[in-house]
Amino acid sequence: MARYNKGANAERELIHMLFKQGLAVLRVAGSGATSLPSPDVVAMKPGLQLAIECKAWNKAYLSISNAQMKELRKWSEMSGAELYIAWKIPRKGWRFLKPEQFNDSPKGFNISLKKALTHGIDLGVVIGEQSQIVQ
Amino acid sequence: MARYNKGANAERELIHMLFKQGLAVLRVAGSGATSLPSPDVVAMKPGLQLAIECKAWNKAYLSISNAQMKELRKWSEMSGAELYIAWKIPRKGWRFLKPEQFNDSPKGFNISLKKALTHGIDLGVVIGEQSQIVQ
Repeated sequence: MARYNKGANAERELIHMLFKQGLAVLRVAGSGATSLPSPDVVAMKPGLQLAIECKAWNKAYLSISNAQMKELRKWSEMSGAELYIAWKIPRKGWRFLKPEQFNDSPKGFNISLKKALTHGIDLGVVIGEQSQIVQ
Repeated sequence: MARYNKGANAERELIHMLFKQGLAVLRVAGSGATSLPSPDVVAMKPGLQLAIECKAWNKAYLSISNAQMKELRKWSEMSGAELYIAWKIPRKGWRFLKPEQFNDSPKGFNISLKKALTHGIDLGVVIGEQSQIVQ
């Protein structure tokens, strides 16, 4: 219950952030009726489509199973939407991560908190309002 | 209950049709968390985004309130997705209608069954697999 609420609150926060930036946002309903598992949130504006999987983890790493990453990538490929994993990091805020930033291990995909903090981008960069500084 | 089921079954059927055509499809969750009412279904493939409001009416006309049409148009404009109203017509199948095909009356937007049958397009045309015959 606590875990569910934390996730649901984070998702709601993300939706409001996207909406405030002028994107049309939707929360995806349970995928019972659809034939392909889909991301948590889809956000769109003309010329930009985002498929976002939303995570609120208080750990030193974030992991995603091989099966889930495969499904997210498939959905992104079919839809043409850019895929991001949005990690809400306690006391640091959101970082948007691309699948290719994760380590691909036999046990699944993972990324360390440290790497996410330094390599993840923020929403402004995702939606093209800020440019990313090349380091 | 019967009315709800009819609508839910029609929506499920539409989702499967879209998925079979190779589109990534999602059913939109109740809009409690989002700041803007959104369409029932969103379907995407690279270069094409569709926002679809799904209706299963067994009547001589289909009507949509001014408020709902305004919200759907706003969502479509913000998202860049093409808006269609998909009417499942008993014994005739689906017709996809553009908002501008509806009559705009003070009481709301409406279209007759006859006009929907002759002017509505089918899914193949919507997704660009068939071209529309100009009459």
